[in-house]
Amino acid sequence: MKVLLVGATGTLGAAVQALLAPRHEVVTASRSGKTDLAVDITDPASIAAMYEQVGRVDAVACAAGGVPFKTIGDLTYDDLHAAAANKLLGQVELVRRGVGFVTDGGSFTLITGILSHEGIPTGSMSAMANGGVNSFVRGVAVELPRGQRINSVSPTVFTESAAAYDAIFPGFAPVDVATAALAYRRSIEGVQTGQNFRVGW
Amino acid sequence: MKVLLVGATGTLGAAVQALLAPRHEVVTASRSGKTDLAVDITDPASIAAMYEQVGRVDAVACAAGGVPFKTIGDLTYDDLHAAAANKLLGQVELVRRGVGFVTDGGSFTLITGILSHEGIPTGSMSAMANGGVNSFVRGVAVELPRGQRINSVSPTVFTESAAAYDAIFPGFAPVDVATAALAYRRSIEGVQTGQNFRVGW
Repeated sequence: MKVLLVGATGTLGAAVQALLAPRHEVVTASRSGKTDLAVDITDPASIAAMYEQVGRVDAVACAAGGVPFKTIGDLTYDDLHAAAANKLLGQVELVRRGVGFVTDGGSFTLITGILSHEGIPTGSMSAMANGGVNSFVRGVAVELPRGQRINSVSPTVFTESAAAYDAIFPGFAPVDVATAALAYRRSIEGVQTGQNFRVGW
Repeated sequence: MKVLLVGATGTLGAAVQALLAPRHEVVTASRSGKTDLAVDITDPASIAAMYEQVGRVDAVACAAGGVPFKTIGDLTYDDLHAAAANKLLGQVELVRRGVGFVTDGGSFTLITGILSHEGIPTGSMSAMANGGVNSFVRGVAVELPRGQRINSVSPTVFTESAAAYDAIFPGFAPVDVATAALAYRRSIEGVQTGQNFRVGW
C-alpha cells in the first residue's frame, strides 16, 4: 500500500514509520521539513497542497497534533481555539480533504490519547481534542464513501517519554511506543472502522 | 440556588426551566432576546457581558449549541470551524469564563447527545462537538477550583422532535424532554462531577 504518514518525525510517528516502511510505500509529512512533504495541519491550504503532491493513497495515518497544557484558570480563549484548530480540526480536515484522494477501501487512522477519559491537571484541552476526534471517527465512519474506513489510536503515556511526563502522569503504567505503532498497522491492514484502538489502558 | 440557564428558549431549555423554576431562582439567557439576558455563545465578549450582568451564580446550565448537519462530502472547512466555535468551544468558554462567577461548590452542566457514540448520516460534526464536550467535562473536573463540579447531559432524540428527525434517527427510541431535564437537576443538586449523564440510551 501507499501510506501517507503525517507527523512522521515525532516519537510516535518515527515508530509508525519504522513498522510500516518494510511493508508499504510510506510517504512522510511533517512541519519539520525533514520529511518527503511539508505540512502544517492547522492550515487547510497546506493540507490541500500536500494531497495534491502525494496524489492517490491507500491510507492516511496521522501522528501529529498538539494542544496547550494549562489549567482552566490559565487557558485563554485563544488557547481554546488553538487546541481546536490543531489536534482536533487539523485531523478532521485531513479526512475531509483526503476523502477524494484515498482509494476504494482505503483508510484513515488518527491519533487521540488516554486523556479523553482520564483527568490530569492541565489536561482539559487534550481531553477535548481527543474526545472530539474519537467521536468524529465513530460518526463519520458510517458515511465515508467507497468502502473507506477510519479509526483512531489512543495510547497512554509512552515509555520513551514517561520520565518527562512523570509529574502529571503519576502511577500511569507506560506503554512502549512500538506497541502503539502496532495499532496503526491494525487500522491500516485490518477491516474495522469507526473504532478507537486503546493502547496500554 | 441561583441558576443561570443558557439556551432557555429551546425545546430542552424550556423543559429545564419548567423543572427548575419552582425550586430555584432561574436567570435565563439565549440568542432570542426573549430571555432575561441575551447571549451568543460563539462570541466570548457576549459570554463575558452575560456573566458581568448576572454576577455570582450557584449553577450554570447550558442547553444551547448548534452544529452543521452535512455529510463529510458536503462539509466545508468553515463548517468545521462553525461546529467547533458553537456547541464545543462555546460551552467550554462558558466554563472558562464562568469559573470566577460560580460559587464554592457550584456547578456547570453542559449539553451533548447520543451522536457522540452513534453514527447517523450528516452527524459527524455533532459527534465531534459532543465527544469533545464529554471529554472536556471529564478532563476539567479534576482541576475546577473551590469544589466546583461539572457534568454533561447526553440525551437521545426527544419525543417532542422525533417526527422531524425520524428519517435520520430510524428506530431510535425517543425520550421525553422532561426526562432529559431531570438530568440537569441531578447535576445541579447532586454531588457528582466529571460525569456524562446519558438519557434514554
